[in-house]
Order: sequence, then C-alpha cells, then structure tokens
Amino acid sequence: MLRVKALLFDVFGTVVDWRSGIAREVESIAKKNDISLDPFDFADAWRAEYQPAMEEIRKGRRSFTILDILHMENLKKIAPKFNLHNLSDDDFEFLVTAWHRLPGWPDSSDGLSLLKKKYILATQSNGNIALIVNMAKFSNLNWDVILGAEVTGHYKPEPEAYLKACNALNFKTEECLMVAAHEDDLRSARQQGMKTAYVHRPFEYGKDKLFDIAEVNDYKGDREWDIVSTDLKNLAKQLGC
Amino acid sequence: MLRVKALLFDVFGTVVDWRSGIAREVESIAKKNDISLDPFDFADAWRAEYQPAMEEIRKGRRSFTILDILHMENLKKIAPKFNLHNLSDDDFEFLVTAWHRLPGWPDSSDGLSLLKKKYILATQSNGNIALIVNMAKFSNLNWDVILGAEVTGHYKPEPEAYLKACNALNFKTEECLMVAAHEDDLRSARQQGMKTAYVHRPFEYGKDKLFDIAEVNDYKGDREWDIVSTDLKNLAKQLGC
Repeated sequence: MLRVKALLFDVFGTVVDWRSGIAREVESIAKKNDISLDPFDFADAWRAEYQPAMEEIRKGRRSFTILDILHMENLKKIAPKFNLHNLSDDDFEFLVTAWHRLPGWPDSSDGLSLLKKKYILATQSNGNIALIVNMAKFSNLNWDVILGAEVTGHYKPEPEAYLKACNALNFKTEECLMVAAHEDDLRSARQQGMKTAYVHRPFEYGKDKLFDIAEVNDYKGDREWDIVSTDLKNLAKQLGC
Repeated sequence: MLRVKALLFDVFGTVVDWRSGIAREVESIAKKNDISLDPFDFADAWRAEYQPAMEEIRKGRRSFTILDILHMENLKKIAPKFNLHNLSDDDFEFLVTAWHRLPGWPDSSDGLSLLKKKYILATQSNGNIALIVNMAKFSNLNWDVILGAEVTGHYKPEPEAYLKACNALNFKTEECLMVAAHEDDLRSARQQGMKTAYVHRPFEYGKDKLFDIAEVNDYKGDREWDIVSTDLKNLAKQLGC
C-alpha cells in the first residue's frame, strides 16, 4: 500500500470528458446561429491550441495568463475555420465558459467521494480557479482544495507546478500521489519525487481512437507507475478506500 | 434576498473556536511535560501576537510569510511566560499544528453543508492553505475552494485580499458575500464593494466575555451589514437555503 497523504489530480481528460462537453455546447451554439459544423472536430481543434498557448508562458515569452483568457484567444483563432467568427460576444463567452461545465467521467463523482474519506483531494490542473470551482459545482466533484496554475504560478509540466503544490499542502513530494491519464504529466511529477497513479481513459479523444482496454494490464511492468487504474473507483479500491 | 453567488468566510472565530481548540491542545502538552499553566490565558496570549506579526507584512517591512511560520515565531516568543520554552521540537510543532485541528462551532459543519447547496463557499482567511485544508478535514468543513493569504499574497484587511479573492472566482465584488464575526473585516470587505454578513460569536473570547445575545438584534440598524445572523445555520435560513 502506498503511504501517501494527498492525491493531486490532473482534471482535463483524467476527471472530466472535455471533448464531449465542448462538442455538446458548441452544437447548441451552432444550432442557435444556424451554422453547420462537426462539433467533435471543433473540440479537437480548440484543444489543439491548448499546449502551444501555454508553451509561450512556460518559455517565458509571455507573463502568466489564466486559461480562460487563453481559451478565448484560441477560440477566436479557430472560429473562422468553423464559421463561428461572427458570433456575439455573449456566445463567445458562453463557449469559453463551456470549459467550466465539463461533465465528469461516469465514475468521477463517486470515485472522488470514496477517495475523499481517506485522503486530501487537490486539483493540480492548468485550469484557473474559477474554471475548476464552477466545474466542481456543475459536475459534483468534491475537492478539498484547488491548487494548480494560479496558486503555483506555473503550468504543468514545469517542475515548480508540482513542487509548489506539494509545498502548499506542507507535504513532501513523496507524500503526494499525482493522478493523471497522461504520461508526460506523471513523468514530471515523478521526477519531483511524487508517487504516480495512471488512470486509463481510452475515450478521451473519442471512441474511434479507443485503445484496447486490456492494454492497461500491461502498463505497470513497462512504465513503472506506482498504480495503474481503470478509473477513479478502481483507484479508490486499490488504495483501500 | 441578496443576489450573491459566492460566500467568502473568515475562519478563525467565525467558523472555528480557536480559543477552546488551542486551550485543549496546550493542556495536553502541559500535562505531558508536567507544566502548570492556564490554557485559556495561553491561548489569549498566543492570539494577541497574531495581528502584530501580520502587521509587519502589511506595512511592507517583511516579505509575505505564511501563518504557520508566524505562529511558530509567536509561540517561541510567549513560551517563557508559560514555562514552555524547554519543549521538544516535536511538541512545538504539535502546538503550531493545533491551529490545523481547531473545532468548528456547533453549527458550522451543518451550516456550511446547507449553504453549499446554493452557493460557492470559499475561505477568505489569513491562514495558509495547509492549515485551512487540514482543519477542514478535521472538523468536517466542506469548502468549495480555499482562498486567502497565499492565493492573494495579502493579509486582510488589506483591500487586495478581498479584490483578488473575488477576482479569482471571476465574480464582481458585489456578487460576493463576506461572512465574518469581526467588524473590521466586514468594513474592509464592504469598502471593496462586497456584501456583508455579520455572524454573532459571543463566546469567541470566552464565556466570561459574553455579550448579551439580544444585542444581535440591534446590529442591523446601527451597523448596516446586509445580514446579521446568530450562527451559520441561521445565515443559511436567511439566505433561503
């Protein structure tokens, strides 16, 4: 059994299904404005701008800027491609806050409630505080504390993002478990001394991009995460909750 | 009815009973070390160093330092007066983290649960993140988000403490209700445009210093807080929860 005190969660992809959430909301805006588009292509295109926008900040070419602002800039960048460039300001705002209303994966709310009985649950997301707290209320994700971007002043996978988050909780990095569906995130967390739990989210990029669910059984030997789990309820079970 | 979206809470005195909590824990340390002291005098003496220590930071004479560190410094300052100066490092640490284990007032946990159904509940305390999150787990205080000192980089009642907290939630100050048992806190919050709820905590400084509970009925006219409440369950009732 791992002897950790706090669980730090990646959120987009690991806890919530950003692709379905964004697709659902852009579909309603498109319908309202009589625009034809593929909502999943739109979600993928918007998400594709996510890392490049943060990279400007990580490289020090731009001062720290919250994700809501980056999302708006990225939306305006891709809008013409989807015939959305003439949307009203209110519709643009509605779309940016669609990230505040992302649905949890089916196991997320219950899984977190199980884990919360035994551990401190923190978000360690690149999302800004308002985004994460609104999403928590909307999708019933009962965090103990919201950490991440604005609290640490750094975007993952920068080392400071992990170090400052553990430090804010007054725990050593080895007392904290990073929970994520993404290996680059886990790798950086591990480099700072954190324990790691991989969560298998085969549908993050759509069902057509499904990995074989059996693959999860092979992860441990290959990749040496401390825990490999199929979802958050399974993680709770493995942690004795 | 007030049209607010988030409730920001002062914590020490308003949500938790710091005086009883500290007295209880110093009593156990004193007994263990065969030291005789008045545990309530000790709690009052320690708390008396709280504002002066933060004032150094507010005035810019010292860089931002978290409350756990200030509590340790203040403890070492008053320790000789209570014959505690020869305590072990572990005992000093135990006492500093006594602030992480403060009990809620009898209505606090249930009152917050009622309020949480309708509002975003944030702490806006001078306590550091680890202190507030540990206290929340210990005393079952289900916050949505922990704001305050480390997130804003300012100690109340500095204007930035309130402005940056509301801004982190992406709300206008008038969409946020400051909840506190202390008038200086409410006054500063109101100066930034926040709505205000006074909570009457007559026993904060002990039962011998009890104000007349009937006094609460007179507050509204005199002091013009938006809400005057007798406890957090009463606040929930007044807010239609």
